[in-house]
Amino acid sequence: VEDTYPSRKGLSSITDRQDPVIYAPQNSTPPIDPSQIEQFEQQGFIVLDNIFSSAEIEALQDESARLRSTASNDEQSEKAYTEPGHHEVRSIFSLHENSTVFKKLMMDERLAGLARYILNDQVYIHQSRLNYKPGFIGKEFFWHSDFETWHVEDGMPNMRALSMSVTLTENHTHNGPLMLIPGSHKKFIACEGKTPRQHHLASLKKQEYGVPSNEHLSMLVEKQGITTVTSKPGSVIVFDCNTLHGSNGNITPHPRANVFFVYNALSNKVAKPFCEQPPRPEYLCARSNIKPLTSSRSF
Amino acid sequence: VEDTYPSRKGLSSITDRQDPVIYAPQNSTPPIDPSQIEQFEQQGFIVLDNIFSSAEIEALQDESARLRSTASNDEQSEKAYTEPGHHEVRSIFSLHENSTVFKKLMMDERLAGLARYILNDQVYIHQSRLNYKPGFIGKEFFWHSDFETWHVEDGMPNMRALSMSVTLTENHTHNGPLMLIPGSHKKFIACEGKTPRQHHLASLKKQEYGVPSNEHLSMLVEKQGITTVTSKPGSVIVFDCNTLHGSNGNITPHPRANVFFVYNALSNKVAKPFCEQPPRPEYLCARSNIKPLTSSRSF
Repeated sequence: VEDTYPSRKGLSSITDRQDPVIYAPQNSTPPIDPSQIEQFEQQGFIVLDNIFSSAEIEALQDESARLRSTASNDEQSEKAYTEPGHHEVRSIFSLHENSTVFKKLMMDERLAGLARYILNDQVYIHQSRLNYKPGFIGKEFFWHSDFETWHVEDGMPNMRALSMSVTLTENHTHNGPLMLIPGSHKKFIACEGKTPRQHHLASLKKQEYGVPSNEHLSMLVEKQGITTVTSKPGSVIVFDCNTLHGSNGNITPHPRANVFFVYNALSNKVAKPFCEQPPRPEYLCARSNIKPLTSSRSF
Repeated sequence: VEDTYPSRKGLSSITDRQDPVIYAPQNSTPPIDPSQIEQFEQQGFIVLDNIFSSAEIEALQDESARLRSTASNDEQSEKAYTEPGHHEVRSIFSLHENSTVFKKLMMDERLAGLARYILNDQVYIHQSRLNYKPGFIGKEFFWHSDFETWHVEDGMPNMRALSMSVTLTENHTHNGPLMLIPGSHKKFIACEGKTPRQHHLASLKKQEYGVPSNEHLSMLVEKQGITTVTSKPGSVIVFDCNTLHGSNGNITPHPRANVFFVYNALSNKVAKPFCEQPPRPEYLCARSNIKPLTSSRSF
């Protein structure tokens, strides 16, 4: 497989995206308002409100609390990551293995159907996780393109994947909400430095490689600004695999939690990583166990 | 002098404020709109917009840039504090000694006159500083009451002081703006732990003593919420010495800078610290060199 997006090979650089954003044929009918598809194409993200009932949202919140309490009892679990310097659980992976509720949610037509439309293909879950940013001590996530990591460290060939983050708590402007740089998905920023061994053990706590340079970030923000997503529980933030995003820390008492699914086109299955390291574990990147999602009406 | 607000003597506790907020006599005419004085009394802060001309704001920004470049050349200066783990200058103290522009600003009737009105006394500068939170790496400041530190470590007897922060850059919601808990100035939170030796050397980078408990913070925020101040350069945030405030970190390219003056009533001069440590240095707390400000028409 050709490396269309070389990164971590030397100096930082910025080039144009080589792939479409919307893969659906021009005259097909989208499962959501066409203006939202247009917005996704131009900005690299959209927010869907009011797609779940309050009973559904409560069920998701309960399931999140259950998973977190199980994970806290099993601190040694390699699939649970804690805050730097703390014991609170920050991320739990492989939700389809741990949770029937979240497995059904990722298959739900309201999510998977939209992914199939935008990517115009069957889809599978490249990664799934529950993110929990605690109050008072929540740390920042620096700006990054998910695709840069999935390409370099996982061998995802092209930009034909997207993420959905289902919010489980309220996102205020003050509790470290998701920030995105609109339009950044149309550029690819190659990052400096080489990938260190076992990079994921450190990068999932605090990423130091695969981060864009301050100069490129300043340039993009200067031109396109920053969008902060505030939302109620149960909103869905859909963003392209290459949209630059990050979040500030959180000293407020309000925690932040979301479930996060990465839908990849079946035709865009991962190959050999584009760095000189072995593949990351299966719970970070589906590789041996790739199955297209079947349709489901509700979780 | 009696210790009206004991703190760092044992466990955390919350009690009522013993002092007035507005010291001006009932029927006196305020130098700003009476509704703003009322708001200050109830919330513990106000924001004044459009009190400086654009030429004045530019002069302040130029002076800030000059001071920062001087301080960077003199990294050893005890009056300049850097970001944890970085060399960028975060705070420069004793502005009346370093800068004619800022000395005139702190005497300006638009600021000092309002302080005299609220405190109903002659005023002097307890502390002055230039704060600079750089882009990309700006770290958080955890919640605190300034009065708690000034009382325990400096021996300020009563709550009869206020701060003014003159913003020099734009405060967005996303670049670590000032957050305040409205109404928190009417409670006093005694903090856990004893004051360590030379506490200011660490606390000005990252405060670990004199911080309220998570339980008390949650309780106050639950009742009264959090106000985030967004503003253009040249706005003045006026807040009571005991209003709880803090700020998140800043991964955006937008730095944050402000000049910060603490006006104390002359009748509220510092005494012996209410902890078993020697007084902090003169540049953090005026003690031997206390002079009431004289009136000045403009800087």
